[in-house]
Amino acid sequence: MTPLWVVSTGPGDVCLLPPLAVGALEQAEVVAGYGRYLDLLPAELLEGKDIMRTGMTGEVARCSAALETAFAGRPTAVVSGGDAGIYGMAGLVYELAYEKGYTERVEIEVVPGIPALSAAAALLGAPLMHDFAAISLSDRLTPWEIIEKRVKHAALGDFVMVIYNPRSKGRSWQLGRVLKLLQTVKSVETPVGVVRQAYREGQSVDIEKLGTLDPQTVDMLTVLVVGSASTRVLGKHLVTPRGYLEKYGAGPGPGVL
Amino acid sequence: MTPLWVVSTGPGDVCLLPPLAVGALEQAEVVAGYGRYLDLLPAELLEGKDIMRTGMTGEVARCSAALETAFAGRPTAVVSGGDAGIYGMAGLVYELAYEKGYTERVEIEVVPGIPALSAAAALLGAPLMHDFAAISLSDRLTPWEIIEKRVKHAALGDFVMVIYNPRSKGRSWQLGRVLKLLQTVKSVETPVGVVRQAYREGQSVDIEKLGTLDPQTVDMLTVLVVGSASTRVLGKHLVTPRGYLEKYGAGPGPGVL
Repeated sequence: MTPLWVVSTGPGDVCLLPPLAVGALEQAEVVAGYGRYLDLLPAELLEGKDIMRTGMTGEVARCSAALETAFAGRPTAVVSGGDAGIYGMAGLVYELAYEKGYTERVEIEVVPGIPALSAAAALLGAPLMHDFAAISLSDRLTPWEIIEKRVKHAALGDFVMVIYNPRSKGRSWQLGRVLKLLQTVKSVETPVGVVRQAYREGQSVDIEKLGTLDPQTVDMLTVLVVGSASTRVLGKHLVTPRGYLEKYGAGPGPGVL
Repeated sequence: MTPLWVVSTGPGDVCLLPPLAVGALEQAEVVAGYGRYLDLLPAELLEGKDIMRTGMTGEVARCSAALETAFAGRPTAVVSGGDAGIYGMAGLVYELAYEKGYTERVEIEVVPGIPALSAAAALLGAPLMHDFAAISLSDRLTPWEIIEKRVKHAALGDFVMVIYNPRSKGRSWQLGRVLKLLQTVKSVETPVGVVRQAYREGQSVDIEKLGTLDPQTVDMLTVLVVGSASTRVLGKHLVTPRGYLEKYGAGPGPGVL
């Protein structure tokens, strides 16, 4: 069996890349990935490897090519930003491997990583302390009606919502429509965390309101966190209390430990 | 300003602990945490530190104590398993810090980590490739009606569902009730990933069906992943296709790169 690692590269900063990911990249002879994510990796990690670099829509070509090199006996890594298991490359690699009948000779291992939702939450404060839903607004592969249905039920269930792929050059109207839809269920005062380029150059972190967030200020490098009914702005942070203080109060001091 | 890091320790295996977390622990003079998570850390990372170890329900006492030492000028870390920002300690630390008025002297930094949902997904295959909802079944702090409402809307929205805290000694009936509720909306054939002790000693990974999963086999160290309508079992893996193959087919070979 030849290993094929699907390596999560996390937000992109090497200080958030765990040893399991580094080890997989070190062992790989071939590394495939979307150019943007390859460029975020330290150059020395890719030195001496065969690099298969593709553009943003080259997902199928990239994963197929990686499977071919692994099938041919060369240890291979597919890199995927954030967590490869969340809107990343892990699923496509498995689908292709089973379709091609390669799973007898290729051993796929997904190396989990820090997802964009965790990175955005850490920079905002603690908005994901309670139940949340992750929704991508990209209708490139998903019918828009399904996306709207999910947004509606996430709002009715009062989930905190993490919105991936909120807007891009080619998808300009979707976010505005979702913000309007959310306002039919949620208060216009609901805080919305707007995190761009988390843990990368050009990072920005803002807290806006559902009723006044301007979709034009949002791009494809942004993740949005829409609060639930209990999400609060504390100082410059966004926090969804889990209920400890309501139940137990601020509690005893350190003396009891 | 004295730093107070809320450090995500991920699944517990040091190979999944990124340098940012290691660095925070190295700089801390005081480390507070639930005993189970402290025990998973390499002993040398805690050497020479003042350790504040508390039991499972000591969350408020632990975070208060950590805030006190930071307020007194000692760099402090609160450790939290998985991602501290997802059902972890980050929210409580912020709540207490603002309530005590400590944010002028204590600089809180959440160090994001690999959440249990990412660890479970990586071991199962790729079940979180599409929209998902995370729901905790613990009604210790959340009224049961809210939990049921969220389960219902997550099912109606056809989200993949990640179920945290599915069952414990003190909470024996909740999971059975949720499985019954899910069956009013979803097929009994819906695959359910059952991951226990992900990336820890005693790890187990199974794929069951919604109609036949026995709640008795599930404990508080387990995370469940309930499929959406499109989630499939491929060989021994659980995969929720994102739609690339439906749209583009298995695509061209590596020659095109």
